[in-house]
Amino acid sequence: MFPLSGLHHDFGFGFNLFITFTFSLCHPPTINTRHAPLQLNPLKQKTKFNNQLESSMMAQNGSDNEDEHGEKLREKGSGMRLKEEEGSVERVFQHLLVPSWRNQLTVRAFVVSFALSILFSFIVMKLNLTTGIIPSLNVSAGLLGFFFVKTWTKFLEKSNFLRQPFTRQENTVIQTCVVASSGIAFSGGFGSYLFGMSEEIANQSTDTSDFKDPKLGWIIAFLFVVSFLGLFSVVPLRKIMIIDFKLTYPSGTATAHLINSFHTPQGAKLARKQVKMLGKFFSFSFLWGFFQWFYTATDQCGFQAFPSLGLKAYENRFHFDFSAIYVGVGMICPYIINISVLLGGILSWGIMWPLIKTKEGDWFAKGLGDGNLRGIQGYRVFIAIALILGDGLYNFIKVLTHTLWGLYHQIKEKQRENVLPVADQDSPSNPQLSYDDQRRIQLFLKDQIPTWFAIAGYVAIAAISTATLPHIFPQLKWYFIIVIYLIAPTLAFCNAYGCGLTDWSLASTYGKLAIFTIGAWAGAAHGGVLAGLAACGVMMNIVSTASDLMQDFKTGYLTLASPRSMFVSQIIGTTMGCIISPCVFWIFYKAFPDLGRSTSEYPAPYAIIYRNMAILGVQGFGFLPKNCLLLCYIFFAAAVAINLFKDFLGKKGRFVPLPMAMAIPFYIGPYFAIDMCVGSLILYVWERINKAKADAFAPAVASGLICGDGIWTLPASILALVGVKPPICMKFLSRAANARVDAFLGN
Amino acid sequence: MFPLSGLHHDFGFGFNLFITFTFSLCHPPTINTRHAPLQLNPLKQKTKFNNQLESSMMAQNGSDNEDEHGEKLREKGSGMRLKEEEGSVERVFQHLLVPSWRNQLTVRAFVVSFALSILFSFIVMKLNLTTGIIPSLNVSAGLLGFFFVKTWTKFLEKSNFLRQPFTRQENTVIQTCVVASSGIAFSGGFGSYLFGMSEEIANQSTDTSDFKDPKLGWIIAFLFVVSFLGLFSVVPLRKIMIIDFKLTYPSGTATAHLINSFHTPQGAKLARKQVKMLGKFFSFSFLWGFFQWFYTATDQCGFQAFPSLGLKAYENRFHFDFSAIYVGVGMICPYIINISVLLGGILSWGIMWPLIKTKEGDWFAKGLGDGNLRGIQGYRVFIAIALILGDGLYNFIKVLTHTLWGLYHQIKEKQRENVLPVADQDSPSNPQLSYDDQRRIQLFLKDQIPTWFAIAGYVAIAAISTATLPHIFPQLKWYFIIVIYLIAPTLAFCNAYGCGLTDWSLASTYGKLAIFTIGAWAGAAHGGVLAGLAACGVMMNIVSTASDLMQDFKTGYLTLASPRSMFVSQIIGTTMGCIISPCVFWIFYKAFPDLGRSTSEYPAPYAIIYRNMAILGVQGFGFLPKNCLLLCYIFFAAAVAINLFKDFLGKKGRFVPLPMAMAIPFYIGPYFAIDMCVGSLILYVWERINKAKADAFAPAVASGLICGDGIWTLPASILALVGVKPPICMKFLSRAANARVDAFLGN
Repeated sequence: MFPLSGLHHDFGFGFNLFITFTFSLCHPPTINTRHAPLQLNPLKQKTKFNNQLESSMMAQNGSDNEDEHGEKLREKGSGMRLKEEEGSVERVFQHLLVPSWRNQLTVRAFVVSFALSILFSFIVMKLNLTTGIIPSLNVSAGLLGFFFVKTWTKFLEKSNFLRQPFTRQENTVIQTCVVASSGIAFSGGFGSYLFGMSEEIANQSTDTSDFKDPKLGWIIAFLFVVSFLGLFSVVPLRKIMIIDFKLTYPSGTATAHLINSFHTPQGAKLARKQVKMLGKFFSFSFLWGFFQWFYTATDQCGFQAFPSLGLKAYENRFHFDFSAIYVGVGMICPYIINISVLLGGILSWGIMWPLIKTKEGDWFAKGLGDGNLRGIQGYRVFIAIALILGDGLYNFIKVLTHTLWGLYHQIKEKQRENVLPVADQDSPSNPQLSYDDQRRIQLFLKDQIPTWFAIAGYVAIAAISTATLPHIFPQLKWYFIIVIYLIAPTLAFCNAYGCGLTDWSLASTYGKLAIFTIGAWAGAAHGGVLAGLAACGVMMNIVSTASDLMQDFKTGYLTLASPRSMFVSQIIGTTMGCIISPCVFWIFYKAFPDLGRSTSEYPAPYAIIYRNMAILGVQGFGFLPKNCLLLCYIFFAAAVAINLFKDFLGKKGRFVPLPMAMAIPFYIGPYFAIDMCVGSLILYVWERINKAKADAFAPAVASGLICGDGIWTLPASILALVGVKPPICMKFLSRAANARVDAFLGN
Repeated sequence: MFPLSGLHHDFGFGFNLFITFTFSLCHPPTINTRHAPLQLNPLKQKTKFNNQLESSMMAQNGSDNEDEHGEKLREKGSGMRLKEEEGSVERVFQHLLVPSWRNQLTVRAFVVSFALSILFSFIVMKLNLTTGIIPSLNVSAGLLGFFFVKTWTKFLEKSNFLRQPFTRQENTVIQTCVVASSGIAFSGGFGSYLFGMSEEIANQSTDTSDFKDPKLGWIIAFLFVVSFLGLFSVVPLRKIMIIDFKLTYPSGTATAHLINSFHTPQGAKLARKQVKMLGKFFSFSFLWGFFQWFYTATDQCGFQAFPSLGLKAYENRFHFDFSAIYVGVGMICPYIINISVLLGGILSWGIMWPLIKTKEGDWFAKGLGDGNLRGIQGYRVFIAIALILGDGLYNFIKVLTHTLWGLYHQIKEKQRENVLPVADQDSPSNPQLSYDDQRRIQLFLKDQIPTWFAIAGYVAIAAISTATLPHIFPQLKWYFIIVIYLIAPTLAFCNAYGCGLTDWSLASTYGKLAIFTIGAWAGAAHGGVLAGLAACGVMMNIVSTASDLMQDFKTGYLTLASPRSMFVSQIIGTTMGCIISPCVFWIFYKAFPDLGRSTSEYPAPYAIIYRNMAILGVQGFGFLPKNCLLLCYIFFAAAVAINLFKDFLGKKGRFVPLPMAMAIPFYIGPYFAIDMCVGSLILYVWERINKAKADAFAPAVASGLICGDGIWTLPASILALVGVKPPICMKFLSRAANARVDAFLGN
């Protein structure tokens, strides 16, 4: 049976919600993802993999005679067939011993995790700093982790040195560690709140008074004091969430399915093939990045500046920029995301900005240039913010309502059960439970984490944090921090619960809440902008890691990994992330001095958006150019209306574009949307030619493209750091300009 | 039995020769091809197709118990398995009626021929004017011809309008007509002697006194009065060559095999698949050409100027220029050709020219610039000429020796047979002959072309020609022409015979002979240069069409097409060619005003080479820069030595590069060699992955690439003619130059 069906009896309209969220999973992560970087569209991938892997699970499908509800869900869920192989999965594995929690934490697992963390930190950082759209890298992390350890154990096996076989529990530990570590690359705010404090971004905003430039030291310190709180805040609730409430955690479930399937013989074979495909496209993508590099003497040179749709289109940032990473992202994201992004690009850069430009001198002063927030740039940034806030607010209210509603019914249900004198349902020996559930509950409850330990940990870290943070950000007073830490556990629980229902983490929305509240409280005179941004960081880190950990508990529950090993793995992963992510960011920051400029290769679009939100919160709307506020209201309302319309349409709502996805091109231009649509097109054609093969290998190809291009940024930034500059500029000139240049060069 | 085996008993060393020639078939056509444009490497293709098609022939292999000679040939011939399906081919077709010769000449055949003639004229013209290396387009012509008529007849069949089924005889008529027509695009000398007369080329040479710019009128007139003579000169000899001497004509045989196979059910199925593949790559190549166009505001812009190996390499013309046509050519040409071209490029542009450039001011005057023949350009052109002449002369002597030797033995054999009172071997009822031979001879002898008609035709056209030509070229006196026409039939016979033995047409070598003899006879004072070039044209046209016609007779013999329909088809094809080719050239000439300049997109390398040969013949070596003559002697000797070495090595000689192929990059640079090697690499990898598929489809892919890019030149030249210029320049600047340009443009 579908684990959610008990819930859904209670609030049937949850289905629509569920569907809506499925298509929202690839949203720009700063608002609505369950710690988006690694969890963007897990359901889609799960389906893809499961189609192939179900057979390898030798699953006696437990939902063959499922009730009408199950059918309905399957129908509506469009590819979300969360089939219940639980009835059989554990029987497949029953002859295998589950290692003790200490033995699940092997050295080799953390070595592999460390390597993969670096890889994914680079990828996430590059995505952060280019568009902020981050697809799910679960599949590639899973594949690569499995591949590395498997190769290593195979090698040891042959040389008879293997002391411990590679288990799915160990695989879960790797996955958890990598997710935790590279999650910091997102929740650290290097592309959003943290970089939004810098002078570079301040100079582009309307409030240049207060800034704090990134420095390796304070960033690491900051991350260490805020990143562990989330872990401790929800640990005591894990039994309630996973066993009592039976929350789905779709991403965690999908990851568990993937890991389980890898460890069946047929699944391992497919995984090997997928790894080979991934490797091929990894090499291609890496070499392509290398080749492109030679022709990129400046930002206006090279393939990234290729006016593939003509010079006029290029001026409005419509061009295919040959970036393998976004073609890969396009292949992973659902079609509707890619189309939304493209639509947003056409609406803004194709129609609105050219029209608004004709009002120069009327709506805003002449000659302000392209990057001035009091000119055309103001419309770009603030209309994007309006869309993001509109979409975010709508979904915040929606998820919160459902969370509270669900919670209320859960508790009522519990109370009724407690009144009736039935046996303890959660006891592993309960005959009502399936074999799988029994075994899982048994192992999940075996290794306990004492509640006093969690509470003590939280209080201790909060105390250190409260003492430390005002030294890093003098604007962030100690009483702000205490208030945050008092409220945070509640929000962390809300987020973990909502994420369990919908797979949608609202971490960045909670972060924005903090920006506005703390910013306004501090006030403009006392550095409200920086206080707001810093508070955003504190809040985001707590709620984001809380939902992450709970997802991982779910994964661990389904793969029989011990909660203790999960927790330790998260702690180690977070520690890694607190060091790796700032270092990776530091490389980018030092290597590309124009980081954050809207015309640069790394515009870091969310940095300026976050800073301007903080300024809005502190200073109000006074400085906006004419009619900009009106347009913002219209787009805010439109975002809410589109969401309402989407939910109203139900199943057909999946054809309605997503306001959140439309917002990013408003600011940075639609070029990456074209890349993503090329990815969609490739996937579409591939699916038309050979559906089975596309389903099995498209995620691997996409991961290869993403990883190759992503890791190329490592040598690229090292080259930039040591001062090796590309030798050639591939320049695109109009015919007339070329004639002038030729005359100038004396050809 | 192998048709040559009778001959080979007599001169066994002919095998080596045969092999050598197989690898020479892709030579630059101006010296040694059987009218190269369409016949470059037919054996290779034949083999590829036959591997696939043999089964479809349902052939009882007649050479199963072949003698040691046949074995040896197969072994040495490396993929030249001219299996004798004759024993069975005609049985497959025996239930089909052979139409009368008039019915073989259908209107639809000539409509299709006309369309294909235009297509292939464009392709050949583009190749003529870019590098002069022209691969065999037989396969594409065959495939496309079959495809068009088959589609048409299928359509009629369905609508019950089909009056006459599509026969292989009709297919042969199309093939013959297209080959004759597009052959003119090569033998018309638009890339060599004819364009060598123009002012543009004269200005680049050392003798600018005498020139004749191309005009549509005189070119068509010239072609009409010289192109038909070859046809009449060898018609009376067809029975001797085909039936009595049993000459192989490998290209003609291969074409016949192809056509025969198309008309078996399985062959037709494969052909359809191949056409589909061709169509795909045709579209790709065409669209790629179209895309490239946008970025090519000048010759120094766009993908053709892409410094894919760096700017330094680009200065020395080492770069991949993304030209689909030469990637296709590389896929069709044997590996050794591509490697030879690359070696030649490395030797010249990689080593010699940079070294010679350091002697500027010593060996030649300073500041002469890149294009001056008294400077560095002199070395480029004259060393290339030396290589070409050395290779040409060696092979001329070799082929001539073998021709005369073979002829001598043939005649002796005949005489011995005539002395013995045996039955007439050629009578179709001779029981010694196989069924195939009987049937073929029967049909070949059925439709006669009277000898008086051939002689009368030759004399009449020669008379008209003698009266007309001096009006076109006043430098070419009437007595020169009479002398040429007296010698020509002998040379035409020699060439047709040599080509039958070796598949190697020496038309351009005979043409060069004419340049030197007539040029020297006329003398510098009386326009010897133009007289030589014009004489070259007259001679080349005669000997080239003679060998073409005989190849076609062989094809007709093997497909039961009537000699009369072949002859008529040749006449019609030649007529088409005399009109289409000049028009196509005219489009290029008008559309690309820098035609013939060495840095242009269309350098027409042979034009300057031919003109300089004429100047050499008339004026001697006086004007060459220092040490150039010495280097010429060395390379001339080297060309002869390499050939000797190649022949000496026998089978292993196939690894020795070809001097002729090495010569072209000496002048125009190695960039096209890189394209061709990319083609080779693709083919190689493909063969490694899936040999069967590569063998079946590589020629189709290559043809698609060639045809698509080739036909793109039609819209490209029309755009150029109507003054639509590409809007964008994709420019490649060094980092420093880019900084200066950015400052200049005020970015």
